[in-house]
Amino acid sequence: MALIEPRTLKGFRDYLPEQMIPREALIDTARRVFRSYGFLPIDTPALEYEEILTGKGGEETDKQLYRFEDQGGRKVAMRFDLTVPLARFVAQHSGELGLPFKRYHIATVWRGESPQRGRYREFMQCDFDTIGTESVVSDIETVLVIHDLLRAIGFEKFTIRINHRQYLMILLEILGFSSQQTEVLRVLDKRDKIGVEGVRSALTEIGFAEEKARELILHVDAASIDPGGMKDPRLELQKRRLHEVREAVLAAGVHKDRVRVDHSIARGLDYYTGIVFETQLDDLAGIGSVCSGGRYDNLANLYTKEKLPGVGASLGLDRLLAAMEELGIGEKRGSTAPVFLPYFDEGHLADYLRLAARLRAAGIGVELYPDCKKLGAQLKYADRRGFRFALVLGEDEWKSGRCQIKDLGTGATRSVALDGASGALSPDLLAALR
Amino acid sequence: MALIEPRTLKGFRDYLPEQMIPREALIDTARRVFRSYGFLPIDTPALEYEEILTGKGGEETDKQLYRFEDQGGRKVAMRFDLTVPLARFVAQHSGELGLPFKRYHIATVWRGESPQRGRYREFMQCDFDTIGTESVVSDIETVLVIHDLLRAIGFEKFTIRINHRQYLMILLEILGFSSQQTEVLRVLDKRDKIGVEGVRSALTEIGFAEEKARELILHVDAASIDPGGMKDPRLELQKRRLHEVREAVLAAGVHKDRVRVDHSIARGLDYYTGIVFETQLDDLAGIGSVCSGGRYDNLANLYTKEKLPGVGASLGLDRLLAAMEELGIGEKRGSTAPVFLPYFDEGHLADYLRLAARLRAAGIGVELYPDCKKLGAQLKYADRRGFRFALVLGEDEWKSGRCQIKDLGTGATRSVALDGASGALSPDLLAALR
Repeated sequence: MALIEPRTLKGFRDYLPEQMIPREALIDTARRVFRSYGFLPIDTPALEYEEILTGKGGEETDKQLYRFEDQGGRKVAMRFDLTVPLARFVAQHSGELGLPFKRYHIATVWRGESPQRGRYREFMQCDFDTIGTESVVSDIETVLVIHDLLRAIGFEKFTIRINHRQYLMILLEILGFSSQQTEVLRVLDKRDKIGVEGVRSALTEIGFAEEKARELILHVDAASIDPGGMKDPRLELQKRRLHEVREAVLAAGVHKDRVRVDHSIARGLDYYTGIVFETQLDDLAGIGSVCSGGRYDNLANLYTKEKLPGVGASLGLDRLLAAMEELGIGEKRGSTAPVFLPYFDEGHLADYLRLAARLRAAGIGVELYPDCKKLGAQLKYADRRGFRFALVLGEDEWKSGRCQIKDLGTGATRSVALDGASGALSPDLLAALR
Repeated sequence: MALIEPRTLKGFRDYLPEQMIPREALIDTARRVFRSYGFLPIDTPALEYEEILTGKGGEETDKQLYRFEDQGGRKVAMRFDLTVPLARFVAQHSGELGLPFKRYHIATVWRGESPQRGRYREFMQCDFDTIGTESVVSDIETVLVIHDLLRAIGFEKFTIRINHRQYLMILLEILGFSSQQTEVLRVLDKRDKIGVEGVRSALTEIGFAEEKARELILHVDAASIDPGGMKDPRLELQKRRLHEVREAVLAAGVHKDRVRVDHSIARGLDYYTGIVFETQLDDLAGIGSVCSGGRYDNLANLYTKEKLPGVGASLGLDRLLAAMEELGIGEKRGSTAPVFLPYFDEGHLADYLRLAARLRAAGIGVELYPDCKKLGAQLKYADRRGFRFALVLGEDEWKSGRCQIKDLGTGATRSVALDGASGALSPDLLAALR
């Protein structure tokens, strides 16, 4: 029989344990932080009716949609984000959910885009949103969640940049460019890549006069705190509001360097109407924002007449994992259990099994090697997998009631009694393995 | 603009928080147990080349496959289980993985089957396998993992039934029915539903003589410990092996009622070649096996010439969740944070935010209500969500430095100081909320 070549589709990835272990740890951390604020988990199907998903993310997204007819002739598509399913979900279950509704959703999405530049056709999104309130408290809390998340992961130096969509809208109106807001916001979104000069030339390309382009940049450039000149009271109001959000965040204990008002943050999506967020890692600004979001005033208007305002953000798992790897953050370990128990005295299988069970009952994970091979071969396996300790017991050790604990990092070995005075595992053994 | 009806596809489900919270808890428990034995997490794509998936689960599965052409004209399909992707994965990465390879994989699969009788077209599987060893230690360990899992979830009374495929094969050979083994195994798999009489009549229907049917039943019926008569040494060997597995499992501390040798366990799949497992909840036998699996001697022969024996099992998440609900196992709670903090004194927003942050830093989750409404309306929300405590602070409390802790289960209220002598949150407060 001819073999089938084992391969994955272009743009799709297998996650090997060495990639999956930090990924699971990151997701656990995110969930723990979300839950500490009372956010609730939900999930939605990978497949939706095509009509639910098309036209929601723009032309580009429609092109990237994985869609097909199912066995029943229904037109279906795979979700391309978690926001459209959230809108459908909230419209469908609004009676049961109750408002305000705070949810997190960590799930896979699919986009058939060109898999160049490290882009994947299958990736995980990690979103949290507060639906059904216009309160600034939820805006503040969204910033706090982003902050707590990055701290909990282990990042020390990062900047959450906040802006208000209205600030940009009013500015464009004053400068006479309301009709081109989408293009202008798109140019502003690229400022980190193309720089101030790039923004200016791009603005003139889409029809801004040189002078107006300069003025716009002056009012959005973080460097010019008070550009003077245009003292529009509406702009002043938006500024004051943003600074109030920042003050409240600092009052909750966030360091002042972690949050900055930055009027150049645009977040291109039409969808946002209020505060918008981006988050840069100070040591790795090049990878772009690792957590972005904002406030919208109508989440689900395609599916319900109920007006559902909300605010939320999305954590960039792939970017964060790349950053953690680059900055050496997070424990790197190939094993999920700390202790390796070689099996090399066949007559004592029951004893090995019992010892492993007792250690697990004490909260210490143990992998027992399944094949009764030479100790050297087993320790090689343990080294490769990245266990912290090997607990070595052969005929002599079983007789004497003592075992050898080998630290697989340092190579140091010590002898410890298995049982303590009370007959339970000895405190020395438990202490050494924790 | 006409609204789009918010709806999910037939056979697909949204998970609301009240379903998702126990689901996440169950998955966490499973992961914790897998990891305590050194199993490693992996993930694979939802979409595979069609040729990887077709023909692997039989005709029925092929019909149920969600398949289509992607934007690049590739024939693709959505995974229908986690075993075929595991085989492809191990064949593809065997060099990097190292053997033995112990993995768990918790992920969604799709089958376009008739969504009757509580069957879904999208559901989650939860598998663990040890690949690359024929050692009985891995068979034993698989039983131990099943045991630990059910205990960790909170089940006390369950029976892991074990059998050996060879026992059944030899029996069929002796009775002259080797050529019909697949049909016979399928009949045996139904024994819990159709009873001994049903098995006998089904066997005669497929061509067994009445007497042979009786003899087969005699040798597989759990009630007849020693049927006598047919003392084939090969059958005796298989029996002895199974009893050795059971003895080893008991030696590791498992109660004798939790594991039983049962020669009627067949596990219909052709794929199994060694030990097979099923697990019944004693109080809910009707829901069927909640954890099943077995040993196979060649996992990936379609993709590689490398012979990869293994053993594993699959946890039935949906069945377990239904059983937990029915037996009242596991904490039922609608909130993810224990503490609800009403916000009803607008002037103290910064104080509310700071208090919530301090509690979170102490490991106590807090949801701050975002809208400054009447206390009664906020407490109603808290009741509905299922918080354990409300921490009530208005103008008076902020002044006095004391707060009211309301137990939302009992309605009891007590007054506690916010800060202790050291300026940190008072020990009374922390103790009351833990």
